[in-house]
Amino acid sequence: MIGGSLAIRLHEKKIASNLTGVDLNPEHSRIALDMELVDEIKPLEYAISESDVIFLAIPVDQAAILLPRILDKIDNQIVIDVGSTKSEIINQVRGHPKRNRFVATHPMWGTEYSGPAAAVNTAFENKALVICDSRDSDADALAWTKAMYKKIGMHILEMDAGSHDLHAAYVSHVSHITSFALANTVLEKEKEENTIFELASSGFESTVRLAKSHAAMWVPIFRQNKENVLDVLNEHIVQLKKFKNSLEKENWDQLKELIENANKIRRILK
Amino acid sequence: MIGGSLAIRLHEKKIASNLTGVDLNPEHSRIALDMELVDEIKPLEYAISESDVIFLAIPVDQAAILLPRILDKIDNQIVIDVGSTKSEIINQVRGHPKRNRFVATHPMWGTEYSGPAAAVNTAFENKALVICDSRDSDADALAWTKAMYKKIGMHILEMDAGSHDLHAAYVSHVSHITSFALANTVLEKEKEENTIFELASSGFESTVRLAKSHAAMWVPIFRQNKENVLDVLNEHIVQLKKFKNSLEKENWDQLKELIENANKIRRILK
Repeated sequence: MIGGSLAIRLHEKKIASNLTGVDLNPEHSRIALDMELVDEIKPLEYAISESDVIFLAIPVDQAAILLPRILDKIDNQIVIDVGSTKSEIINQVRGHPKRNRFVATHPMWGTEYSGPAAAVNTAFENKALVICDSRDSDADALAWTKAMYKKIGMHILEMDAGSHDLHAAYVSHVSHITSFALANTVLEKEKEENTIFELASSGFESTVRLAKSHAAMWVPIFRQNKENVLDVLNEHIVQLKKFKNSLEKENWDQLKELIENANKIRRILK
Repeated sequence: MIGGSLAIRLHEKKIASNLTGVDLNPEHSRIALDMELVDEIKPLEYAISESDVIFLAIPVDQAAILLPRILDKIDNQIVIDVGSTKSEIINQVRGHPKRNRFVATHPMWGTEYSGPAAAVNTAFENKALVICDSRDSDADALAWTKAMYKKIGMHILEMDAGSHDLHAAYVSHVSHITSFALANTVLEKEKEENTIFELASSGFESTVRLAKSHAAMWVPIFRQNKENVLDVLNEHIVQLKKFKNSLEKENWDQLKELIENANKIRRILK
């Protein structure tokens, strides 16, 4: 989904003259060709040797394994990953002789869907792009990467990998856990699925849609970012218990205060 | 917001020849006139005597107080409420001599905004409308109400007030609590508001947008539906603790199962 969406934008902005796709899944390869996301599909080794720039858009556990192997094979190409965690992948190539050809990025955009069929042509527009530990990348690789992301409509932030993973736990990872847990709550308690389906309001859809996200993508993210996610998740349970407590005690003033404090998010989300 | 959005649709579908607005807030009255949501603003007594149909679109605590007073004053008009809880308001008019002129409804549509300026012309389209305890309403009042909601694009479900309040806790009320609590979590832990603002992804926005909702509307909903909301909220905390537990124990198989179970929501949310 991320790779395919990026391919659409790279074509559209004429950033890539030729796009070669690599995918372990033959069905995904076929769809990527049918949708003209890529110009051709090739095995990894050929794709690496023929490309100027290599994008790694796979689950973060696989990316951390594959990146050093790609760096082993490149000459002077640029390698860019787009994963949702940054510390682990950066640690995997610390000290690698080609570390400087790698740029660690995280486009803060996604949907609850996966695979090439979910690629969309409005992806990344007006969203943030985080580049981590940029001082470890060559100036030319960094400049190309920044120019490319700007062309597809993103604004660029730089931070170290540790800060990124902490912030990502807040603004993305824990949202997914609350959404998964809310789906499980409703599925556990509400046996009349037809009724949920009929009644599901836009509010429900909004808070639960992320629960459609795939385990193959999210288990590795939670695993790599375990400490930060647990820290935020613990605080979230504390906050939920304050709501529970104010309801149980019928303390409506406290409930009002909790809601009014939450309303401060209006300053942040326009 | 609900009253104003309804007004737009009633005008647009030529269901109302004249719409009279009643609002305690002079600023909201002015906006409703400026936006041509209503044709005129009048005091409640005049509006009741001059109208064939009366819509009550105010917070549910106020609606439960005002409805019996309105029924005291009507002749043969239809009175329709649009509140998010149904047991309390129905209990307040049980045995009232004009109970049969009242139709208890809940359009399953809303946004996180309030007031007439938030009215939108696509409101209610393709959403569910719940009518509660319809056997206690006169046939003509019920028929008019159903025809009206169908004209503005809604599909109609009938159920008793107790069932409605239980289902509403699942598909709407607890989503708001998780969203308020998630906003409080982020505001508590993440002191760098600019960073949240910069990074906020569509996933974050989706799960947190309901946290902008007003206390004046939501405290009365949680208060009236306390038992159901607490029941679902307790289950939600249990579900979140399963995620916490699998992270703490590094039980990645359990985490995968929890996510895959949540994915079943795809059957319900297309």
